[in-house]
Amino acid sequence: MLSLPNARPYAFQFPLATTALIVIDIQRDFVDPGGFGSVQCGNDEVFSKARAIVPTVKRVLDVFRAFGGHVIHTREGHQPDLADLPAAKRLRQISSPHGHHTMGIGDQGPMGRLLVRGEYGHDIVDELAPWPSETVIDKPGKGAFWGTNIHRVLLTRGITHIVFTGVTTECCVTTILREANDRGYQCCVLDDCTQGFDAQQVTTSLDIIAGQDGLFGFVGTSSDFLAAIHESQTQLTPPSTPPLLSDNGLPSIPELISRYKKGSTSPAEVVNYIYDRIEKYQLVDPAVWIQLETRENVLKAAESLVSKYANKPLPPLYGITFSVKDTIDVANIPTTAACPQYAYTPTSNAPAVQHVLDAGGIFIGKVNLDQLATGLSGTRSPYGVPHSVFSDKHISGGSSSGSSVSVGARLVSFGLATDTAGSGRVPAAFNGVVGFKPTKGTVSAIGLVPACRTLDTITVIAPSVADARLAWRIIAHHDASDPFSKLPRSLPTWHVNYLGHRLGGFTFAIPPPVALGILTPAYHTLFSAAVQTLRASGGRLVGIDYSIFEVAGALLYDGALLHERMTCLGLDFLRSNLDTLHPVISSLFSKALASPPTAYDVFSDQALQIQLTRKAQQVFDTLADGIDVLVVPTTTQHPTIEAMQANPLALNSELGTFTHYANVVDLCGLNVPAGTYVDVDGVELPFGITVLGGSGFDAKVFDIAAVAEDALARRGDGEKGLLST
Amino acid sequence: MLSLPNARPYAFQFPLATTALIVIDIQRDFVDPGGFGSVQCGNDEVFSKARAIVPTVKRVLDVFRAFGGHVIHTREGHQPDLADLPAAKRLRQISSPHGHHTMGIGDQGPMGRLLVRGEYGHDIVDELAPWPSETVIDKPGKGAFWGTNIHRVLLTRGITHIVFTGVTTECCVTTILREANDRGYQCCVLDDCTQGFDAQQVTTSLDIIAGQDGLFGFVGTSSDFLAAIHESQTQLTPPSTPPLLSDNGLPSIPELISRYKKGSTSPAEVVNYIYDRIEKYQLVDPAVWIQLETRENVLKAAESLVSKYANKPLPPLYGITFSVKDTIDVANIPTTAACPQYAYTPTSNAPAVQHVLDAGGIFIGKVNLDQLATGLSGTRSPYGVPHSVFSDKHISGGSSSGSSVSVGARLVSFGLATDTAGSGRVPAAFNGVVGFKPTKGTVSAIGLVPACRTLDTITVIAPSVADARLAWRIIAHHDASDPFSKLPRSLPTWHVNYLGHRLGGFTFAIPPPVALGILTPAYHTLFSAAVQTLRASGGRLVGIDYSIFEVAGALLYDGALLHERMTCLGLDFLRSNLDTLHPVISSLFSKALASPPTAYDVFSDQALQIQLTRKAQQVFDTLADGIDVLVVPTTTQHPTIEAMQANPLALNSELGTFTHYANVVDLCGLNVPAGTYVDVDGVELPFGITVLGGSGFDAKVFDIAAVAEDALARRGDGEKGLLST
Repeated sequence: MLSLPNARPYAFQFPLATTALIVIDIQRDFVDPGGFGSVQCGNDEVFSKARAIVPTVKRVLDVFRAFGGHVIHTREGHQPDLADLPAAKRLRQISSPHGHHTMGIGDQGPMGRLLVRGEYGHDIVDELAPWPSETVIDKPGKGAFWGTNIHRVLLTRGITHIVFTGVTTECCVTTILREANDRGYQCCVLDDCTQGFDAQQVTTSLDIIAGQDGLFGFVGTSSDFLAAIHESQTQLTPPSTPPLLSDNGLPSIPELISRYKKGSTSPAEVVNYIYDRIEKYQLVDPAVWIQLETRENVLKAAESLVSKYANKPLPPLYGITFSVKDTIDVANIPTTAACPQYAYTPTSNAPAVQHVLDAGGIFIGKVNLDQLATGLSGTRSPYGVPHSVFSDKHISGGSSSGSSVSVGARLVSFGLATDTAGSGRVPAAFNGVVGFKPTKGTVSAIGLVPACRTLDTITVIAPSVADARLAWRIIAHHDASDPFSKLPRSLPTWHVNYLGHRLGGFTFAIPPPVALGILTPAYHTLFSAAVQTLRASGGRLVGIDYSIFEVAGALLYDGALLHERMTCLGLDFLRSNLDTLHPVISSLFSKALASPPTAYDVFSDQALQIQLTRKAQQVFDTLADGIDVLVVPTTTQHPTIEAMQANPLALNSELGTFTHYANVVDLCGLNVPAGTYVDVDGVELPFGITVLGGSGFDAKVFDIAAVAEDALARRGDGEKGLLST
Repeated sequence: MLSLPNARPYAFQFPLATTALIVIDIQRDFVDPGGFGSVQCGNDEVFSKARAIVPTVKRVLDVFRAFGGHVIHTREGHQPDLADLPAAKRLRQISSPHGHHTMGIGDQGPMGRLLVRGEYGHDIVDELAPWPSETVIDKPGKGAFWGTNIHRVLLTRGITHIVFTGVTTECCVTTILREANDRGYQCCVLDDCTQGFDAQQVTTSLDIIAGQDGLFGFVGTSSDFLAAIHESQTQLTPPSTPPLLSDNGLPSIPELISRYKKGSTSPAEVVNYIYDRIEKYQLVDPAVWIQLETRENVLKAAESLVSKYANKPLPPLYGITFSVKDTIDVANIPTTAACPQYAYTPTSNAPAVQHVLDAGGIFIGKVNLDQLATGLSGTRSPYGVPHSVFSDKHISGGSSSGSSVSVGARLVSFGLATDTAGSGRVPAAFNGVVGFKPTKGTVSAIGLVPACRTLDTITVIAPSVADARLAWRIIAHHDASDPFSKLPRSLPTWHVNYLGHRLGGFTFAIPPPVALGILTPAYHTLFSAAVQTLRASGGRLVGIDYSIFEVAGALLYDGALLHERMTCLGLDFLRSNLDTLHPVISSLFSKALASPPTAYDVFSDQALQIQLTRKAQQVFDTLADGIDVLVVPTTTQHPTIEAMQANPLALNSELGTFTHYANVVDLCGLNVPAGTYVDVDGVELPFGITVLGGSGFDAKVFDIAAVAEDALARRGDGEKGLLST
């Protein structure tokens, strides 16, 4: 926790990891002559003071960037067609009979049309130009929370504290700070990093913020801020340089990026390192990849990335390697869905893949899966049976088998997978990694082989909650061309708890004992231990009506909903290829096609789904006595490949006991590794819990999963020892 | 247009009809000793100034209420469980080491827990106690736009200008005014109706609002405001008292309420008046009512209403009579759906009915419809065939036949009806009244006989756009118990145009000429004339891809979607009652049941529906080159009862050409009467256009429909004469 000891009304304390620095409207239009600001101010001498803060803001920004802090820039302005400009804003000032507004918004000025996006004057001054890893909020208002997604941007990043800089103090800075304060952010303005067009108004505006014991927040100084960061960095610097890349696997994404920045490693070195690992791992498990890029091609990609960003700020996934489940399109590489008969070669990347590439990601290859993404076992592919990274006798889980193994074996930094009924969470649990299934419709499903279009989600597999969050942040964007993409405004927002969830608390529920009766003894023990750990880490366990979720799970597998899959895959395709599909898949589809539900069954199950969805969402409404998250064991047991193949249908269905319902009632969920156990044969196997949240509460799930991950990790080996006895 | 000539920075002009008066946080907790405000202020003398504005605010409020203006109150406070209280707000001020905050939010004070809803201290001071017709916004923030529905409340009422009063100037008043300003509202604070806890901060806060030629708005005085209203009322007072109730029909709802307030009529007088009309109209058309309340019972209801509100402010629908389509539950009265075999007697009111009763509405009876709400003709009921109020030879339209006739014949002030594929719009057009079909899921569908649950909407039938809007405002509330009820946050909001749509403009599209080819010549002429009128009244006609809507219409009637009706009505019921249904209904359902779609057809048509819905919504996205509204002829021709009965299926389908798609792709729509024509037999018949808007844009549809109604009415008889030649 850092501190600005001299802040008003008292010391401002903030945790660097969840603090955002916001730079408000330092656009040419507001600080350079001839822009809208100079018109508005009407006094050249006063106006010049606004420009004078830029060097101070730059010092703060540089230091904050060096640490890797979250930076948000705002720009006030309007679409070229002025469709987002209210008539009152367009006309009020310029209509003043004795006013000094000689030009209005949209009028042509020396730096282009005033306050119009895309114009030279609208952009941020060169000294403070945003980096690719930073968010720029284009706002039509003086505030920043109307007509923008800033609140979700901040929630997505897990921000709890905001440090304010920019212009003008009395107008946009004050307005945005008040908006942020109402939403629970702990706010502090740096008084030498903000300026306005009237000295007295600036002073009073700051007095109001800090007055009445901190009515809206704190007022500090840049020197205090710089000193605090300097001090924290001094404390954090490790005594010796860590090894570059070791056999312990790839460093985390932020650690890799930090090494790239320092020049202590390069994308080419990382690529060579992981190809060495991949080659070694082929001997352990040859069933991971369906189509692996060549080392040479990937080295070329790394090289062109390096030259593209030479002497430039790096994008957020610069030089980060990733695998792609072979139901997601990568341009010019066949998408097989582990079904050669189904294969096609797309000409463009799925938007999720494109976002990662645009952010500097390096694509390594397409990975194996249960055929047509049908299954939770990982044993249903013509491309072989990947096994758990923990045991060559145990299943990897599916359908995202290759994705989870490629991450579990640290062959890539993360994987893009999918999850319709558990396909991203179950294999993550069986490989000791994080699997995050976002809210339906929050990651574009364009370029994804559909399983059930109304239930599918692209999913992130990563070694840690933080890495998964970073990858998710890059791919989660509304896609107007995807009709299943939810409108951003339909997603919830909530006030943040600046204390964080560990200190500030959270509520969670778990399935009732009878539902947990299905777990093996080891799973039962580990789940109970995880629940105790959560309770000791800020979690308050409360009761809910869990039957909603059980009924929803049954609805998917015993009802009509799953038959959407036939329509999505194509009845003609299925009928003409039944004989050549993987035997288990073939028998599944044959059975389904032989006894389809009626249209009336569909309507009636959907009506029930709608009711259950509403009830499920109410469970997560914290303003109406709801919980923050539901915590469940991700799956019920860890079968061997042999056991799975002996009982392919019933066991597969059992594995989804705690995953099937999530997409039916529109939850998001994240598998967190929660310890290991040693089975009867002496094999150490992983266990995972899933943190489930309501529709659109993805960021909250990440916040709480991070607390869980940290607490479970700190619990450490003691737990394992206890359980293996 | 009223004016405050002495306002800063220049005269503030506002139209009384669309101006809201907002009274901010004049709660005991903020102005009385011992509340949170006195803790926050920390200086008794300064604090007492806040209380001193109350008499001035009351004078302003009294005058504004007398005119019937829109009043909004806000209260800052939190749920008793403090679930909506951010930790930063709870802890920051009270944690100040040298501060004067001895008590925090939620702590017990002399007037109850500080800033907690339901406590004595949280409520508004007695002098300014809200009236039942006024909206109270309970807000967790210092602003009012976070965690509340205030923006939609203002849009729903069509507000463009806001006059601000309340406390404290530097905190909540300033914050809310800035929020409102960003959303396009033209704002003015009355400086003698606001006060704060620091004189200099108050002065500067007002200076910032009006500075820079009106950075955020205007600052005026109560005396100017009172003078402006007084002057406008003087001008408006009619030279002589109008007749109380005449044969011209019921006055408008606001006119009736105004007469009730003045005591120039009473609910009993109105009830007797309409029962006289109803009795007379039974001779003209005995097929309107299925179950009419007795005059005696309704007079008793009127009497108990009068005694309930004796010497109290009146609720918004006080003494306003309404009919209910017989697919909507009224407690203890059979709901027949015009199908005695289906009838059941509900024990509670549908929420929509309950809202109207709570608002002072007087229920008159259940009205006729096409059996099981199936049809657009009005000729398919065992309770007889209502005819158009314009002609005993022409159809009334359906399925809401009785609703539209009961309003068209001015037997009630408004009707609650339904609309799945046009059932509320088509009969409105055939009876020369307004029919408003809200966005799906914005009025509770609990207590409604389902036709297709995913497509049904409760609908308002009223003589004018303003009356329909008022009734809609009363019934449109989120219902957590209705799983089809949309979450309020999922609905769009937009910035208002303070100029209004006539002056400020709007964009609209119409179907292409080939689609309009289906109209009769008279309809074609009247539609063209209406389009010209809109263009002369602020409308800019633009092109769109209309095929989206045509495909969606075909999807409903030629595809699988409509078969949801069988599931909703119950397959067992339909199969066992087929023989006894109305012959046309029976043949329709027999045919449908004989060739049901497959489950795969349903999934595939729904996927298409989802795609079309997304495209249709994009048509109405004005920030992405979209239009405000789509204007269509409501129906294609006005058949005689004889013609309809001769060709019951094809003609019924044709009548829905321009209505079928609205619920399929989630639009809202309003039929506006748009002139009359004289047919070959010399009968004068009405014509209507429908103004369609995107999902959740109901308020915008009302705004533009009001412009259309006004312009079409002002066009007046000239049009009629022209067309009858």
